[in-house]
Amino acid sequence: MISNKMKKLTANNSTIRAMFEEGKKLAKIYGEENVFDYSIGNPNVEPPENIKSIINEILNEESPNLVHGYMNNSGYEDVRTSISDFINKKHSLNLNKDNIVMTCGAAGGLNILLKTLLNPEDEVITFAPFFGEYKNYVENFDGKLVVVEPDTTTFEPNLDALKEKITNKTKALIINTPNNPTGVIYSDKALKDLATVLNEKQQELGTTIYLISDEPYREIVYDNAEVPCILKYYKNSFIGYSYSKSLSLPGERIGYVVINNEMDDFEDVISSLNVANRILGFVNAPSLFQRVIAKCLDAEVDVNIYKRNRDLLYNHLTKIGFDCIKPQGAFYLFPKTPIADDKKFCEDAKKFNLLLVPGSAFGCPGFVRLSYCISYEKIEKSLSAFTKLAELYNLK
Amino acid sequence: MISNKMKKLTANNSTIRAMFEEGKKLAKIYGEENVFDYSIGNPNVEPPENIKSIINEILNEESPNLVHGYMNNSGYEDVRTSISDFINKKHSLNLNKDNIVMTCGAAGGLNILLKTLLNPEDEVITFAPFFGEYKNYVENFDGKLVVVEPDTTTFEPNLDALKEKITNKTKALIINTPNNPTGVIYSDKALKDLATVLNEKQQELGTTIYLISDEPYREIVYDNAEVPCILKYYKNSFIGYSYSKSLSLPGERIGYVVINNEMDDFEDVISSLNVANRILGFVNAPSLFQRVIAKCLDAEVDVNIYKRNRDLLYNHLTKIGFDCIKPQGAFYLFPKTPIADDKKFCEDAKKFNLLLVPGSAFGCPGFVRLSYCISYEKIEKSLSAFTKLAELYNLK
Repeated sequence: MISNKMKKLTANNSTIRAMFEEGKKLAKIYGEENVFDYSIGNPNVEPPENIKSIINEILNEESPNLVHGYMNNSGYEDVRTSISDFINKKHSLNLNKDNIVMTCGAAGGLNILLKTLLNPEDEVITFAPFFGEYKNYVENFDGKLVVVEPDTTTFEPNLDALKEKITNKTKALIINTPNNPTGVIYSDKALKDLATVLNEKQQELGTTIYLISDEPYREIVYDNAEVPCILKYYKNSFIGYSYSKSLSLPGERIGYVVINNEMDDFEDVISSLNVANRILGFVNAPSLFQRVIAKCLDAEVDVNIYKRNRDLLYNHLTKIGFDCIKPQGAFYLFPKTPIADDKKFCEDAKKFNLLLVPGSAFGCPGFVRLSYCISYEKIEKSLSAFTKLAELYNLK
Repeated sequence: MISNKMKKLTANNSTIRAMFEEGKKLAKIYGEENVFDYSIGNPNVEPPENIKSIINEILNEESPNLVHGYMNNSGYEDVRTSISDFINKKHSLNLNKDNIVMTCGAAGGLNILLKTLLNPEDEVITFAPFFGEYKNYVENFDGKLVVVEPDTTTFEPNLDALKEKITNKTKALIINTPNNPTGVIYSDKALKDLATVLNEKQQELGTTIYLISDEPYREIVYDNAEVPCILKYYKNSFIGYSYSKSLSLPGERIGYVVINNEMDDFEDVISSLNVANRILGFVNAPSLFQRVIAKCLDAEVDVNIYKRNRDLLYNHLTKIGFDCIKPQGAFYLFPKTPIADDKKFCEDAKKFNLLLVPGSAFGCPGFVRLSYCISYEKIEKSLSAFTKLAELYNLK
């Protein structure tokens, strides 16, 4: 009696749940300490210590009806002003509160953006490998996700393939940088070239193509890498941001959307995002945490913890013969599987108690994702299991 | 360039904003203390004092990665168990954690329910007067809201009219008790009769008709009134609940859905609600506040503050000649307008700096809604304005 759409989605979900249950089964047999779960992107680094004192400060100093009350559906105006000031300073921009809509994480942000933009049958393009939820978000609004095949040598946007996919039904393009699952940060050149393609296509087709940059990993970067600001490259651009990773607050559902000043139909878009936040049932981003993040805009979790993990795992995997791009950001490795069948590879990995996610889940078969947001000690302990897995395939 | 659906909705929103701006304009001319805004349902009573110490307790005692982290999309299992235990004790039921899905307020709950149930063109029925957002929520999933005309003598469900509206396209019925805008609590008899109608129609049509009881005002009741528990009346029933009003935490977006044990396709429905929470972008109800409410399940705001407001305003309005049902719950009065044109009446009220919402906004013209969740002093000060408004119409 549930809807036809949900019947399919619920069946898919059972597969994910089955994987989760299998992990629990392995833990029961071999002991939790001997099972190496690289499948989940749940930050293990603690939130900054001062979050606690900031919450206390707010509860002691501000009126409870302000802290826990309704506000404009786009969020508290003072919070949005603080965020726009912060971005302006960092990227020499000229934003104000109207450019910011507070959202229930990046997932909430992407949903209100797609609700705002999509008519039924509209197409949204993304580059493989991509976060699987994009398909669901687009289909929530009867749109169609169109996937551009990956450039597996660099994992930068595959622009030649993109050109072929853009039609007059293309309403938006979603990019994700730093990327889940590859850890690649799209370069200045890649973004410039991407903007050129989009501008040419807009002109050629007489349409507007919106670019949505999903950036929950913006602050999780290594070796002084910088994430270019998309607003400077392309006028019809949005940023979807979340504090889930940068402050390790994924359960609190707090993030925002940035709307480029120069965007086509700017006023309509911001009004619509406000209404979409309301009618999709978010109403507003959680109020206390709006006020919390405004007080720690430059706080960050200790990224070095992830860096140590990356280095340990990346160095070991490449040493024993895996082929893998060194991630510049996020907390994932995306090595090539030694056999084309990445699902078979993940089954084999399970024999050594390694839980990995096949690249197929990201539209990129022949690869495998490892989430290294687990403890350093666990990674150390898992290395011999990877060695055995490599030996199984006679790597090196 | 925004979607066609959103174009219409954004235009409507401008009307609401215009009303809000007009209020601000009046405040500027006459001083804020002389403008009486009865238009907004934003709780003015403070949250229970212990919310602050409970938050502190949680932050001090629990691991930050638990408190602020991801959990099952349906919510923390221990929180859901506490809630089901609490409901069991109160209503002698036999629920467990599987019957509870934690949601981003009642608005989030209604949206995941409708996402779960509706195929395009499915019909959802509600009784006028009704909360205007129901239409938007239903249309989010391409359903159609069908409105049953009100029984304006009692504002109990109009069952004769309901029977006429049920077809084989009817997927669900939404009720709201205690009711916004009337303050009426649906009686034991009304709910029994409603269940009889639904059961007969299910049998006649060979369909399942789900009943969704939207109950954000469940705890805001007066004179020892009780709100019957819908789960005992009808097996295909859900409750949508929110702590927005009972704990004055509307900005925190915390609530839950209860799924009746006896429901058709119970397993599919709970799986689908879990997936819907995830893919609509809620992901999960805000984590800290899930843990907060589990620790104060029997806490309530001071309902006497609303009761004093109700009595003051109700007694005055009926004394000066308005015709109005005495609300048993929620924080609204819904008097009949002395002229049929409720919009004209609201325009007239504005001349005395009274901001009211026409019943038309709730599908019930000829009435007007007053939200009395404002200060007692403000209500006292406004009484003479109501008297002048009554005189304008020669009431009494």
